[in-house]
Amino acid sequence: MDLVDLDAMAESHPGLADLDDAALARLKLMVDGAQEVVGLDHLISVLAGGPSMAGDDVIRCYVGFEPSGTAHIGWKVLALRLRNLLDAQANVMVFLADWHAWVNDKFGGDMASIQTTARYMEDTFRALLGHPEEGEGPGQLRFLWASTVMSDGDYWARVLRCSKGMTLAQVRKTFSIMGRDEASSDNDLSRFYYPAMQAADIGHMHIDLAIGGMDQRKAHMYMRDVSQRWGWRKATCLHTPIISALTASGGRME
Amino acid sequence: MDLVDLDAMAESHPGLADLDDAALARLKLMVDGAQEVVGLDHLISVLAGGPSMAGDDVIRCYVGFEPSGTAHIGWKVLALRLRNLLDAQANVMVFLADWHAWVNDKFGGDMASIQTTARYMEDTFRALLGHPEEGEGPGQLRFLWASTVMSDGDYWARVLRCSKGMTLAQVRKTFSIMGRDEASSDNDLSRFYYPAMQAADIGHMHIDLAIGGMDQRKAHMYMRDVSQRWGWRKATCLHTPIISALTASGGRME
Repeated sequence: MDLVDLDAMAESHPGLADLDDAALARLKLMVDGAQEVVGLDHLISVLAGGPSMAGDDVIRCYVGFEPSGTAHIGWKVLALRLRNLLDAQANVMVFLADWHAWVNDKFGGDMASIQTTARYMEDTFRALLGHPEEGEGPGQLRFLWASTVMSDGDYWARVLRCSKGMTLAQVRKTFSIMGRDEASSDNDLSRFYYPAMQAADIGHMHIDLAIGGMDQRKAHMYMRDVSQRWGWRKATCLHTPIISALTASGGRME
Repeated sequence: MDLVDLDAMAESHPGLADLDDAALARLKLMVDGAQEVVGLDHLISVLAGGPSMAGDDVIRCYVGFEPSGTAHIGWKVLALRLRNLLDAQANVMVFLADWHAWVNDKFGGDMASIQTTARYMEDTFRALLGHPEEGEGPGQLRFLWASTVMSDGDYWARVLRCSKGMTLAQVRKTFSIMGRDEASSDNDLSRFYYPAMQAADIGHMHIDLAIGGMDQRKAHMYMRDVSQRWGWRKATCLHTPIISALTASGGRME
């Protein structure tokens, strides 16, 4: 498996030549060693002095988790990546996707259990990341819950836009992001909101760098597709290798 | 076509025997002459002194319109019904479904045009109803826009609940409420949200009596189905005859 190596990307990304050494070092720390980076040009433009998605110079990264299950090695892999991002002076958000977990029938749809697990995950990530400073600035960690974001009607206007003109076939193709197959969910309309919600998360929260395991790739490509339709700027997407559960033959861990 | 006649319903609705003459007269004014009433028992219980959906003694009625097109005879038919409801001391809401119209591609999805039309419809209904008092009390008229309701995150939590476990086939069966056929919308995910939005409208706004042409029947039955699943009380639904466009062979008018 070839991993991302910024030094080998100068030809395909001429903008890299405009970055000073400090910016290049930050970018290397952010992306090197991932399995894939998509749309790197947005990050390059911010590091070159262009506006972030929020219109300032803070690079906002996020990774979303459905609160479910107990800590596993996959979290550690992502935590190492997040630690690098903090060191690169990015703001790092761990997004606790409680409503997404509800849609995906985690804990049998019991929101109280989902949210208890979300609190546990916050503490776990604080520990995995070595208790970094928390806040909205560069080099700081923050936690945000889907239920907080979703209390804003503007979020949902964006979900509607992220759904307009998308075919059911396109949506079904993303269902591996829920750990489900394409044929799994014709009996549950709510699951069809999932990729549009995930795309709206990224836009609504002004994310510059969306991070996930390779299993989240299809959600990010869906986001890029709807952004293209609406003429929105597209966040850079960074995908880490999936570590299969030791007891299962492939597939993601819950 | 047999129209609703309260005097003929004593046997099927024994609760009617408990109503005093004034309450019976109000109920007759509300429902007599409609093409169909579904779930009359809720209205009977409120008139007998039970709590309305909002927990008080005001009967809240609503009819929703996608802002589109110019005034036509169908509006007049509904206005006559709404006038009766005002006279029966119900609160009457005309719901301007601007986001629903957007989902349904009215005015090519141009929200500014949709909302201009919504303002025109407000004035039209004021005139059709003889400029009644406006407010939230009994015998008063009010207007509410979907975009106002949808700015509340709780609304969307309800939309998700109104989508959970509903099959795509069930959703497609309602598409006549948008004036579309079942096969029309597999290329546009957003349209699949429409019946769940309409069901959420009714619950979120504490509606006791949902009114519509017979073309809205499937949305109301969808609402009753999800209410049954979640153990929510079900609003009474009243359906007026559809008047086909003079130039078309059947079908609803826009």
